[in-house]
Amino acid sequence: MLGIGKVGWIEKEKPEAGPFDAIVRPIAVAPCTSDIHTVFEGALGERTNLILGHEAAGEIVEVGNGVKDFKPGDKVVVPAITPDWRTMDVQRGFHQHSGGMLAGWKFSNIKDGVFAEYFHVNDADMNLAHLPEGMSLEAAVMLSDMVTTGLHGAELAEVQLGDNVAVLGIGPVGLMAIAGAKLRGAARIIGVGSRPSLVEAAKFYGVTDVINYKDGPIVEQIMDLMKGQGLDRVIIAGGKGDMMSAAIKITRPGGNIGNINYFGEGDELPIPRIEWGSGMAHKTIRGGLTPGGRDRMERMVNLVVNRRLDPSKLITHKYHGFENMEKALLKMKDKDPDLIKPIVFV
Amino acid sequence: MLGIGKVGWIEKEKPEAGPFDAIVRPIAVAPCTSDIHTVFEGALGERTNLILGHEAAGEIVEVGNGVKDFKPGDKVVVPAITPDWRTMDVQRGFHQHSGGMLAGWKFSNIKDGVFAEYFHVNDADMNLAHLPEGMSLEAAVMLSDMVTTGLHGAELAEVQLGDNVAVLGIGPVGLMAIAGAKLRGAARIIGVGSRPSLVEAAKFYGVTDVINYKDGPIVEQIMDLMKGQGLDRVIIAGGKGDMMSAAIKITRPGGNIGNINYFGEGDELPIPRIEWGSGMAHKTIRGGLTPGGRDRMERMVNLVVNRRLDPSKLITHKYHGFENMEKALLKMKDKDPDLIKPIVFV
Amino acid sequence: MLGIGKVGWIEKEKPEAGPFDAIVRPIAVAPCTSDIHTVFEGALGERTNLILGHEAAGEIVEVGNGVKDFKPGDKVVVPAITPDWRTMDVQRGFHQHSGGMLAGWKFSNIKDGVFAEYFHVNDADMNLAHLPEGMSLEAAVMLSDMVTTGLHGAELAEVQLGDNVAVLGIGPVGLMAIAGAKLRGAARIIGVGSRPSLVEAAKFYGVTDVINYKDGPIVEQIMDLMKGQGLDRVIIAGGKGDMMSAAIKITRPGGNIGNINYFGEGDELPIPRIEWGSGMAHKTIRGGLTPGGRDRMERMVNLVVNRRLDPSKLITHKYHGFENMEKALLKMKDKDPDLIKPIVFV
Amino acid sequence: MLGIGKVGWIEKEKPEAGPFDAIVRPIAVAPCTSDIHTVFEGALGERTNLILGHEAAGEIVEVGNGVKDFKPGDKVVVPAITPDWRTMDVQRGFHQHSGGMLAGWKFSNIKDGVFAEYFHVNDADMNLAHLPEGMSLEAAVMLSDMVTTGLHGAELAEVQLGDNVAVLGIGPVGLMAIAGAKLRGAARIIGVGSRPSLVEAAKFYGVTDVINYKDGPIVEQIMDLMKGQGLDRVIIAGGKGDMMSAAIKITRPGGNIGNINYFGEGDELPIPRIEWGSGMAHKTIRGGLTPGGRDRMERMVNLVVNRRLDPSKLITHKYHGFENMEKALLKMKDKDPDLIKPIVFV
Repeated sequence: MLGIGKVGWIEKEKPEAGPFDAIVRPIAVAPCTSDIHTVFEGALGERTNLILGHEAAGEIVEVGNGVKDFKPGDKVVVPAITPDWRTMDVQRGFHQHSGGMLAGWKFSNIKDGVFAEYFHVNDADMNLAHLPEGMSLEAAVMLSDMVTTGLHGAELAEVQLGDNVAVLGIGPVGLMAIAGAKLRGAARIIGVGSRPSLVEAAKFYGVTDVINYKDGPIVEQIMDLMKGQGLDRVIIAGGKGDMMSAAIKITRPGGNIGNINYFGEGDELPIPRIEWGSGMAHKTIRGGLTPGGRDRMERMVNLVVNRRLDPSKLITHKYHGFENMEKALLKMKDKDPDLIKPIVFV
Repeated sequence: MLGIGKVGWIEKEKPEAGPFDAIVRPIAVAPCTSDIHTVFEGALGERTNLILGHEAAGEIVEVGNGVKDFKPGDKVVVPAITPDWRTMDVQRGFHQHSGGMLAGWKFSNIKDGVFAEYFHVNDADMNLAHLPEGMSLEAAVMLSDMVTTGLHGAELAEVQLGDNVAVLGIGPVGLMAIAGAKLRGAARIIGVGSRPSLVEAAKFYGVTDVINYKDGPIVEQIMDLMKGQGLDRVIIAGGKGDMMSAAIKITRPGGNIGNINYFGEGDELPIPRIEWGSGMAHKTIRGGLTPGGRDRMERMVNLVVNRRLDPSKLITHKYHGFENMEKALLKMKDKDPDLIKPIVFV
Repeated sequence: MLGIGKVGWIEKEKPEAGPFDAIVRPIAVAPCTSDIHTVFEGALGERTNLILGHEAAGEIVEVGNGVKDFKPGDKVVVPAITPDWRTMDVQRGFHQHSGGMLAGWKFSNIKDGVFAEYFHVNDADMNLAHLPEGMSLEAAVMLSDMVTTGLHGAELAEVQLGDNVAVLGIGPVGLMAIAGAKLRGAARIIGVGSRPSLVEAAKFYGVTDVINYKDGPIVEQIMDLMKGQGLDRVIIAGGKGDMMSAAIKITRPGGNIGNINYFGEGDELPIPRIEWGSGMAHKTIRGGLTPGGRDRMERMVNLVVNRRLDPSKLITHKYHGFENMEKALLKMKDKDPDLIKPIVFV
Repeated sequence: MLGIGKVGWIEKEKPEAGPFDAIVRPIAVAPCTSDIHTVFEGALGERTNLILGHEAAGEIVEVGNGVKDFKPGDKVVVPAITPDWRTMDVQRGFHQHSGGMLAGWKFSNIKDGVFAEYFHVNDADMNLAHLPEGMSLEAAVMLSDMVTTGLHGAELAEVQLGDNVAVLGIGPVGLMAIAGAKLRGAARIIGVGSRPSLVEAAKFYGVTDVINYKDGPIVEQIMDLMKGQGLDRVIIAGGKGDMMSAAIKITRPGGNIGNINYFGEGDELPIPRIEWGSGMAHKTIRGGLTPGGRDRMERMVNLVVNRRLDPSKLITHKYHGFENMEKALLKMKDKDPDLIKPIVFV
């Protein structure tokens, strides 16, 4: 990213590892919709000469002398969220916000990202996970952000055994939210989306019903499907303010709304007053950046290794060679109807 | 209530007790701001010939033959919320919404209230609590709604030991939210209000700092006081949509907002996007009608009997005689600067 | 049950329905190990002329005039736990203990059970669930106790996404605990058991490793398998006091133990002091009777209908005709190595 | 501590600060019962030439070059628990067990304690709190262990508004458990103890009833007082295995037991089977080492500064001068009937 709206190659110095850090060479990376937001919509504000990318698996090329559990040559899963673990925010329970709101998200936000020959990982022992032998790179790269973010949606919504759940938006994060709802024991899962490739993937990941927003207002469609009964949990994984409004309308009193969508525009998100019980309906609204760091990645790895989840089905387009990163990024921008996620093997 | 904007006396038949019900004669009652909303602003929609009032202590005059723990002559605390305990909503954990959103609130909403010679209590064994000997009527009447609602604010916000808390609005419910925050172990408690009688009471109930909204924008005043650090928990106990917005702005990432305010106007309540971390700040928003029923009332009684809380300080004006109910109600409407809550001894 | 150690047919009056009750004719029933405990070991103390059985699907033959949602001819799933919903225990959050510890469990405990021509269900609207068309009777009968109890083990242990879990005991309840751990998102699940039919079923329900206690002490085997790292969650679904001890030893600091086993003997269950950190290891111990009632059964139905769980694989032996109930019961007693659960179609 | 049973002065090198560490000179310290256990009962096993003590306030004399928020001359509160924040255990939510079970407790356990001319604090920015001007040293030293441990008892027991609570043991930690139960909103609080100085202090900190175990079995006395109704929460703050047994017996189904007692003897702690509902009573047992580190200490400071808690009443005996440490320690050993806690001003 050269500036808002401009992408291109940048020559930078190879990063250096502090005593607890690692330098990693990417072996597979994926662009994310938020990279698109960052560079083409300026969602994070102006950034110049910022290297994009926060989804990667890689090989360690250098470690600081304080690093104990990793050494050059180790293959690793790299989380999008790499907190500074020595902060008061961690002590308060939210490593995602270590050093300030959302500041656990460093790659392609407050430091250079992973679309580079080498990238820097702070506190390697606390932020990297070993890539197990036999795990596909397709799966590994999806753990960085898509899997952990999607599953966090189900955690935020506090899905319980036997719940009826709706997932609003079935892009790659929404698909993983479906998988997360299923993994936490949801019974019926209603997805909202339209593209055939996504609908097919949604079924693979556990959706029982799909609503197409092109067929009419989604609130009415879902309430019809549910015979007027609200949902136990709703996960917002796409859309704008009207999605927040819809989520509250379809949730039953005492139900939860979990948001993992990055709302990129508008000054305010609306809570519809009447359907929120004029403030008294016990429809809880939670939204949060995914957890990251090593324990989280190891849990995600654990799910894949034990065959609870196969995130590799998210990958629809494969590229080979560093030089194809820009192509993959633009593919993401143009939203090919067959696309879920592209991957670039470096 | 004869209709929106009109109050007067209504002659009605004495209510009858079903097998599990009780008929109660009020011995002390208090009007509530929500009675004012109901009758003068039509907040619940049109109601005609509805008896107002949902805060009362009384004496039982009749019980159905299925009632086991109460008999005529017993003095009782009557909660504002008297759920139907045989509903699926109770099984799902929210008796407040038994039979539908907010439907646990019956008095002066979906059935006649307590400003009457006799009133009807559904499921007496499940919804009434014995008035202990020696407890003042002032305290008892405050338990029906003010105390339990205020304390619920601290529960919704999940106040923890040593927290910094703000309570937005220090009317009688806000004062009890302050008491609730203190009872749950908050350290610093910042109240927002201006009337001297309320400020004095706020100090009695545990506030450490008071912000006057007349002195400038409350967000700025509070953030100055906190040296830029957000609050752990914020309880909304008054105001309109801008109070919701302010609450989110002053909450730290990972903090909670608990709402016990009845928002009476507007189609939407605003969530300020940037301060809510574009959806990812983990600032949880919970709002809900107070719990009611017998166990809740017994817990409130238990707090008063064991001298953890003295709600009688809420009572600033006392009236004697059934005929003064209208006077007390209008006092509430006119917001005398010295008023916190009036009581009528019948 | 004629008395401890004696079974036989008893002639009793057909039960009568109170205003909220139903009389149900069983169409399929299953004996439970706890019936064996009750009749042959006297686990509940002396009982004479008690009708056994608490797992059933049935058809309603009569309802009281207060019943709204069920009518004669309706087919229903009957939970083992049928609480009295109008009790303070329900208000305190534990319907299982409504009216006293474990008193939500009525069938074949404090009233006649379901191995009868007709049986009585208290509060039908609150305690029965409709049997959906197309659901197999095998699945339906397993919901009464096996499924809901097993899943409660995973709830008590608070299994989280990506956890490593052990399930101690893989009888039918243990198998459903495995299913529950999987449904809540466990990654690795270690089962402890030996009979081949159970091991095979354990694999079907989601176990990743099986330990045979005949191969050596289970604590050592599991810690070897885990390379010395304790488990995140342990579910006890069988055994005696030594199982409690083993569970605590294999749990990591900060982990949870969930017990769904009915401990039938001994005055005390042991907590090993050192491994429990001399009281300070944060290894939480929770044990509890399964939730029951209508909402719980509807959630279980919802899981089966949406193909999240197939409990019918628990059924290994099928009998037809009321007269074969005793045969099925004795089959349960004798623990045929191929047996998981028998069913009797009436 | 020279060895088990032997105390005396040891000459050691002044400790050195690593890049994130601090060297602190104690200005006030207090011996703890666990020091007595360590040295006279060998509770932690053999230790030779270990400096005792883990309760202190001090002045910083040196900091490593990575320390940002503290500098020589700063006065600080020092927690007994000083975790290594860069461990997986912290990521899993339990800093108390960072690096292994209980390993967050370093002073006088796995490294030299605070009864020295200088002591070493790992990770000063994460583990120290500033001592506010005007806070008494008596209060400050009690925060290190007594206050935070006692309050953790109320957290482990999950005390809720209006609960009935028993605190078993009213030594200094039990007194702070009483304060913790009150701070979390308990109504009735029953203390168990006998020494007059402790009973008086228990009343100051919020007990409503005191049971003397010399007057008969405590289970019977408490159940009589409660008219047969079990307690909502029970905190164990003293005693041996029989205290665990008593705690379970007096807890109601669905209630919680929180343990903060260090059980020093016996292979096993007993759970009474019948009263634990044969495993099914939902009486949850939690025990854990207190949280420590900076955020915890700041919260404790916050409670004292805002006058929610005055821990200085725990101090009954004051000594001046480093040379009186041994005297204070032996005072603790001999359990003078007037003693609660001694303090030594250095």
